Amino acid sequence: MAKLNENFFKLKKNYLFIDIAKRIKAYTAAHPDAKLIRMGIGDVTQPLAPVVVDAMVNAAKEMGVKETFRGYEDSGAGYDFLRNAVSGYYKSFGADVDPAVIRISDGAKSDCGNIIDIFGSGNTVVVTDPAYPVYVDSNVMSGNEVVYANSTEENGFAAMPPKDIKADLIYLCSPNNPTGSVYTKAQLREWVDYALENNAVIIFDAAYEAFITDPDLPRSIYLIEGAKKCAIEICSLSKTAGFTGTRCGYTIVPDELVQKNSKGEDVKIADLWNRRQGSKFNGVSYPVQRAAEAVFTPEGQAQTKATIAYYQENARMIAKTCDELGIKYTGGINSPYIWLKSPNDMDSWAFFDYLLNEIQVVGTPGAGFGANGDGWFRLTAFSTHELTAEAMERFKKLFKK
Amino acid sequence: MAKLNENFFKLKKNYLFIDIAKRIKAYTAAHPDAKLIRMGIGDVTQPLAPVVVDAMVNAAKEMGVKETFRGYEDSGAGYDFLRNAVSGYYKSFGADVDPAVIRISDGAKSDCGNIIDIFGSGNTVVVTDPAYPVYVDSNVMSGNEVVYANSTEENGFAAMPPKDIKADLIYLCSPNNPTGSVYTKAQLREWVDYALENNAVIIFDAAYEAFITDPDLPRSIYLIEGAKKCAIEICSLSKTAGFTGTRCGYTIVPDELVQKNSKGEDVKIADLWNRRQGSKFNGVSYPVQRAAEAVFTPEGQAQTKATIAYYQENARMIAKTCDELGIKYTGGINSPYIWLKSPNDMDSWAFFDYLLNEIQVVGTPGAGFGANGDGWFRLTAFSTHELTAEAMERFKKLFKK
Repeated sequence: MAKLNENFFKLKKNYLFIDIAKRIKAYTAAHPDAKLIRMGIGDVTQPLAPVVVDAMVNAAKEMGVKETFRGYEDSGAGYDFLRNAVSGYYKSFGADVDPAVIRISDGAKSDCGNIIDIFGSGNTVVVTDPAYPVYVDSNVMSGNEVVYANSTEENGFAAMPPKDIKADLIYLCSPNNPTGSVYTKAQLREWVDYALENNAVIIFDAAYEAFITDPDLPRSIYLIEGAKKCAIEICSLSKTAGFTGTRCGYTIVPDELVQKNSKGEDVKIADLWNRRQGSKFNGVSYPVQRAAEAVFTPEGQAQTKATIAYYQENARMIAKTCDELGIKYTGGINSPYIWLKSPNDMDSWAFFDYLLNEIQVVGTPGAGFGANGDGWFRLTAFSTHELTAEAMERFKKLFKK
Repeated sequence: MAKLNENFFKLKKNYLFIDIAKRIKAYTAAHPDAKLIRMGIGDVTQPLAPVVVDAMVNAAKEMGVKETFRGYEDSGAGYDFLRNAVSGYYKSFGADVDPAVIRISDGAKSDCGNIIDIFGSGNTVVVTDPAYPVYVDSNVMSGNEVVYANSTEENGFAAMPPKDIKADLIYLCSPNNPTGSVYTKAQLREWVDYALENNAVIIFDAAYEAFITDPDLPRSIYLIEGAKKCAIEICSLSKTAGFTGTRCGYTIVPDELVQKNSKGEDVKIADLWNRRQGSKFNGVSYPVQRAAEAVFTPEGQAQTKATIAYYQENARMIAKTCDELGIKYTGGINSPYIWLKSPNDMDSWAFFDYLLNEIQVVGTPGAGFGANGDGWFRLTAFSTHELTAEAMERFKKLFKK
């Protein structure tokens, strides 16, 4: 009789977005004519950039011609053309990342979930609260205990190192999902120092870096000196270039990131990750890698940045409405998320239902991201201008009455 | 200080194909003009079928148009169009598989590696020897002990249940990689009975099913009554339709597959797999899913089957040469692999080096697949007619002298 991974039974019953989907389904079944505006799950709405589509089309055609057909990649770590392109992208905002330490994947969610495989049990895992549920869930599945660093209204929802805790693993996300807060260089400096003092490893989720417009804010943890000795960075093209349905991301494990094994020997963390991926992953679809490469061309950058500017305009619209209505919020600048305080001290699932029932606007209850998220609510800027404007009109009617 | 997953240090130093790549690299560096013929790693050489390319091109174009753009899939389990197509494919050879229990993935290697996450520690894991290295490596990484069922010359390299062992998990692959042997229905019946008796779960790797031409041989374990109560089936389009660089596969966990947890409660294995994938995977690229769908259309089946027939002709060429030279082998019929006995009792890495040095033909040493593989050697039929014919000419010269 097979023994099961009983850690799965410790997981909360439903994955946040599945829970939301169920409530929406129930509502629309009861109200088939309702015009829902979805600002919940962080999915994008704008199409891929023309240069990206062209690259994918051309690569798909190459796959149909014997001379240009591609089978397995040698390493499964990503073609050099894409790893070089990602490295060049980092250079564009001042970070020096060797293409050889960049591994291409099918997305940040997979890498965030799978990276835990290379670590042992008994680690003290620090996760900011609230946070993207995958950090906690993947640790629960592995039987790890999670300790929380609090992101609260008081600290601008930017948790700082819990100095009384000796962390082994640390998850950070900046710009933050769900709170939209962005760490300054000084704040990241504190986290890197804290990690180095404890010999801890930071897993830095940079999925929203493309939304940073303030040149003083760090778009990579590797802009902080010493970070290569303590940090893994995971990023994605989902929000950078609308790849939520195209699927491509990358994870960086610097050669400088070394930890001791139980015998006191040095182990390069990159060797473990390469071995994990070498045995349990077989590379990303060639046409997808060509599409991703196109994102980093000058034309691709111009086109994808125009789309990001489009979403940023939505964020400004939401922020402006909150300002007018006196609703407290963080984010909205340098981030696609607006994290707002539920009016009248409603808990966040109650506020979710209230918005769904009263104005058919779907957001994400903050409680789904952790205890500190209760009473707070996430709206995304990834909708269209038209629907964002319409949602804000409905907000004004609802909260002015 | 982060504790590492020290199970990784128990893994053999190099992943088989990486090791082969290194030896090839060293040889070609020393002999830059050598004309190598690669019949080692199981990669395909023929391009994607025209109907598959068209589908991918069209889907890529859809991604560039707002009205047809696709972001996240709701479930990440695969679009209904593809799950229905896979279900229809199973029906075409007599197996009844509900689309709802089919999960689409980026390939069989990922699923084979990741499926172990849902099982606990302390399982008795039976793996046939020789076998695809991922079965053993993923279990070693999880700290599991592996027990071997012997595939030998005596049993036609088709291991049968080790009745003296109480298995909890069982890995089977038919048509087999590396030995090319194919289980009959009667043999699979024995495995299913053995699994049911022990309440064990079979992980059945059907990656090479498309090479079965004998209508009496089972292309799915679900053609055996009772298998849905004990078996997970993992399959891939890599060999079926040349998707090694396009990346798409699927895993079937029937609703009937139920095991007890430590409290004695029934647990649907599908619930665990869905939760694992729901938290650590985000679906397959939409254009890739459309490409995969096209494989299962009548036109796609005609085109991909023509390519398989092309490879089967290569297999016949190799088998004929072995017959002429008096080299013992299995496989080659109903399988893209020919598993041959190294002449003169050479061990399989010595034979690898001998073929590389003498006739520049690259195969895979049987020892890389397990202890019983030593003295044996795998050649693949995935090369071109021209190169396969050339390799066989070189074989004839070398072994006739």
